Amino acid sequence: MTELRHRIESGIDQGLGREPADLVIKNIRFLNVVTGEVAKGDIAICGERIVGTYESYRGKREIDGRDFTAVPGFVDCHLHVESSLVGPAEFDRCALPRGTTTAICDPHEMCNVLGKEGLEFFLRSAERTAMDLRVQLSSCVPATHLETAGGRLTAADLLPYRHHSKVIGLAEFMNAPGIFHKVPEVMDKIEAFWGEHIDGHAPLMKGYELNAYLSCGIRNCHETTSEPEAWEKLRKGMQVFIREGSACKDLAALSGIISTTTAPFLGFCTDDRNPLDIAEEGHIDHLIRGAIKAGAPMADVYRLASWSAARGFGLTDRGLIAPGQRADIVLLNDLQTCDVADVIAGGRMIDDGIFEVRNMPGPVGYNSIKRAKVDASLFRVPASGPTGPVIGLREGQVLTDFLTMSLPYRDGERLVDLANDVIKVCVLERHGKRGSVGRGFVKGLKLPGGAIASSIGHDSHNICVVGAADADMALAVNRLIDLGGGFVLAANGKVLADMPLPLAGLMSDRDFRSVAHEIKALRSAVRDLGCPLAEPFLQMAFLPLPVIPHLKITDLGLVDVDKFELLAA
Amino acid sequence: MTELRHRIESGIDQGLGREPADLVIKNIRFLNVVTGEVAKGDIAICGERIVGTYESYRGKREIDGRDFTAVPGFVDCHLHVESSLVGPAEFDRCALPRGTTTAICDPHEMCNVLGKEGLEFFLRSAERTAMDLRVQLSSCVPATHLETAGGRLTAADLLPYRHHSKVIGLAEFMNAPGIFHKVPEVMDKIEAFWGEHIDGHAPLMKGYELNAYLSCGIRNCHETTSEPEAWEKLRKGMQVFIREGSACKDLAALSGIISTTTAPFLGFCTDDRNPLDIAEEGHIDHLIRGAIKAGAPMADVYRLASWSAARGFGLTDRGLIAPGQRADIVLLNDLQTCDVADVIAGGRMIDDGIFEVRNMPGPVGYNSIKRAKVDASLFRVPASGPTGPVIGLREGQVLTDFLTMSLPYRDGERLVDLANDVIKVCVLERHGKRGSVGRGFVKGLKLPGGAIASSIGHDSHNICVVGAADADMALAVNRLIDLGGGFVLAANGKVLADMPLPLAGLMSDRDFRSVAHEIKALRSAVRDLGCPLAEPFLQMAFLPLPVIPHLKITDLGLVDVDKFELLAA
Repeated sequence: MTELRHRIESGIDQGLGREPADLVIKNIRFLNVVTGEVAKGDIAICGERIVGTYESYRGKREIDGRDFTAVPGFVDCHLHVESSLVGPAEFDRCALPRGTTTAICDPHEMCNVLGKEGLEFFLRSAERTAMDLRVQLSSCVPATHLETAGGRLTAADLLPYRHHSKVIGLAEFMNAPGIFHKVPEVMDKIEAFWGEHIDGHAPLMKGYELNAYLSCGIRNCHETTSEPEAWEKLRKGMQVFIREGSACKDLAALSGIISTTTAPFLGFCTDDRNPLDIAEEGHIDHLIRGAIKAGAPMADVYRLASWSAARGFGLTDRGLIAPGQRADIVLLNDLQTCDVADVIAGGRMIDDGIFEVRNMPGPVGYNSIKRAKVDASLFRVPASGPTGPVIGLREGQVLTDFLTMSLPYRDGERLVDLANDVIKVCVLERHGKRGSVGRGFVKGLKLPGGAIASSIGHDSHNICVVGAADADMALAVNRLIDLGGGFVLAANGKVLADMPLPLAGLMSDRDFRSVAHEIKALRSAVRDLGCPLAEPFLQMAFLPLPVIPHLKITDLGLVDVDKFELLAA
Repeated sequence: MTELRHRIESGIDQGLGREPADLVIKNIRFLNVVTGEVAKGDIAICGERIVGTYESYRGKREIDGRDFTAVPGFVDCHLHVESSLVGPAEFDRCALPRGTTTAICDPHEMCNVLGKEGLEFFLRSAERTAMDLRVQLSSCVPATHLETAGGRLTAADLLPYRHHSKVIGLAEFMNAPGIFHKVPEVMDKIEAFWGEHIDGHAPLMKGYELNAYLSCGIRNCHETTSEPEAWEKLRKGMQVFIREGSACKDLAALSGIISTTTAPFLGFCTDDRNPLDIAEEGHIDHLIRGAIKAGAPMADVYRLASWSAARGFGLTDRGLIAPGQRADIVLLNDLQTCDVADVIAGGRMIDDGIFEVRNMPGPVGYNSIKRAKVDASLFRVPASGPTGPVIGLREGQVLTDFLTMSLPYRDGERLVDLANDVIKVCVLERHGKRGSVGRGFVKGLKLPGGAIASSIGHDSHNICVVGAADADMALAVNRLIDLGGGFVLAANGKVLADMPLPLAGLMSDRDFRSVAHEIKALRSAVRDLGCPLAEPFLQMAFLPLPVIPHLKITDLGLVDVDKFELLAA
């Protein structure tokens, strides 16, 4: 008898109550997300599946459920594990105990640095995590032709992974202009995955453009930031994933769209959320809590967090507490506040021991910063006059404004204007290719002096540095190069704080609790310097992202995203 | 450039409004089944896809939509085309103009007669129909070990068809006792399709048995006949398909379960519906009309008829009027009464011309009645006494009651009891195998005399004959053999009406309108004889179905369905 046959037959015997189930949660209240009712009874589990509800069961192992309310495991519809600043192994330890039993990740960041090696690392890792980590095939590596990335993945590179057990389809299709302009490499990917699952990425997209984008079979969007935008997408059949990351926070703007009517067409995601925020606020549980608090109907919130999310990816084996479904169950102390007590994932009660035995693959991506030390003069911004473009940063958003401002001007050089909160932002290519540098200004970071450097700079992850003083910018960048990647804060000729991210320049090789402490230390150093922003590191990391309107900067220069072209220097 | 690439790029150009769309429905109201709103605007279509909504479009061809309301094409979640008494080509002509743009069929009847040849005929046909006909792989051929079928399909026989473009998964898994008893051949099929789509069939199933059945990954049921039954299935995560066929009518009992909360977990199906009923009442449109009339919320009814149904089968490309979706659109004169004016299927306006150019495959299954003529003495029912089992027929249901009655008894033979509405029912093997005959009695057919013979007798389709007089039974059967299959009504030594069904003994080779007339003639002949039942032919055809409780009859004898065994003779 095959192992599978044995599992099927055990499920029948245990479901019938002929044999004790492997695990029974006795006398538990649970939210039925089909009917919206809170029911009470036993949940019988055989191996990784639920095999019985609404009946009484005996178990080889029994848990007293009297004090808990069970809900189906949560699905994170879109995230980059890299943005949690830890690798998949630590992300698993960090997010699963918050109830996220399925996470749909896009290893986009790592692939942009390492190419196929990054993708394969994620696939190997996903086979081992205790949560069900699914890996979408990164569709935009490089994201655009307006920047220099480390990796390059063509349609032909991605196709061999299409039927991998952990792959669902193509990851967020960011290169919308590439679609509208029918760029051959972009069309190759749409054609290769025609009829299969393709995730979307459509910030502010509307009207005819949204129609054309959707006509390519793209199904969802996690970049929606207002109700009118969400309603247009829903009306056009696009699934809307409400996001609450560390940098991008859309829940407050979007919780009003949640209703019994819309819930099947929604989902939650974190996109980019770091371990400190996960520890302090939560993961998908944080979104659930927030949505209920904002007045969304509770049963619909839980439905969209599990069933709607799973079905949006064609995952028919989860999202309900029902026989035949994966035993992904969250035990809550309280339904209203989504207070997670315990988590069962694939039939296993999650505790520290589960994580110890995963046999995760070793880390990859050391020594990825391929750039020689720099001199302060690199950050001079030559110009023909004082007036020119300035990136207008919006706190808590990745969208920026295209500002035109007059700045101090001397000897053919535009200068920072601290009184008006305008400092420099430069992007230095670091993949050992062109050595190119893009230079510009940003308003809104509220950094009163010094500089911050980051080897995270979406999506090509060149070195991004912002600063009020060229010398501090150089100091921060050089320290970052020494670390092999990371975040560095420098001021007045001193490095005030740093955090190494040696894995592809994106992730720490330490455990998630240490990383949370490091983030805390960094945040407080930035605050001590006088910057009031909640997430200056993450916010600056999105300044190089040339697929999000309106003005961005890459290693090749400033980008007018609406025109999808580099500004003339 | 590939043909596909050309279609994708045209979709982008037409969606953007850069080029006129292939077809534009101008100024139409349409029901948005995502939001429940009625919107107004243009619908742009490129090839078989919708590429634009909520914007204004020019078209190479334009239709004035001012007088219509558009809704997404309807999905019939479960049917046997054979039960429409015409082949797939005529079914297409008959049901598509009623708005059924997708039909999920199970060629179970034909496969039980012809085996693989029947399946392949359906797959070839499905590639040609104007509607999107999907063919589930018949899981129960033969349905049980309690009868003699013509064909036999094992897991190994089905596997090669799994990835056929028209196949979704395994068809209704009727052999529930086979699951509970872990019968190897049954387990082979569950194992072979593990993780894929498996349709259910679970009349009256509940409690532990329903849990065990669902634990096998079976997803839906179209055999639900009461609200409490539906609620248990929904609570256990099973999608419930509300059925309204020619024989089985469950809408009145189930329309009360439709709400905004439950709609995503429901669907409509016809199972068995003949061309006369389709012509007189409608197809899925009949269910929509009936549900709305019964008070179900209109937007939810249309949602479940399209989106919920499609998603239940993993069909993500249809069910909404939205860009990227198949252009399956029904134009209604009136939303409330689902009064169908025109149908667009896969971007094509359906008219007679569409059906003319389909190039359908030729018919198969002639000469399938392999049985020599019979003598009236064949129908004697020897017994040791007057008291014994009688099948209790319930009008409009396939469920029967297990009655024990005392009947007239003479010379070691039990006799009919017309005063108490009890007549004989016999099943004659007709696949040229055992030549076996099952004999019994049925109460409830209200046939005052004569006999009816049918070569449709679910699911093995042996000859089923009911009658008040042995001589008429023989006459009807012999006439049926001459016809090569069909329905025959005989009384007082005369054939009063007949209808040939020469294709596998199941389907006519004539057009659907002729078949509708023939059914009408048959019905009136039965009525003239004094039988008041609406569908005596269809009702008797379910008497041999040994997977539906409680007492049935096959060529091997009476079957106690609850015990799943033949009664001792």
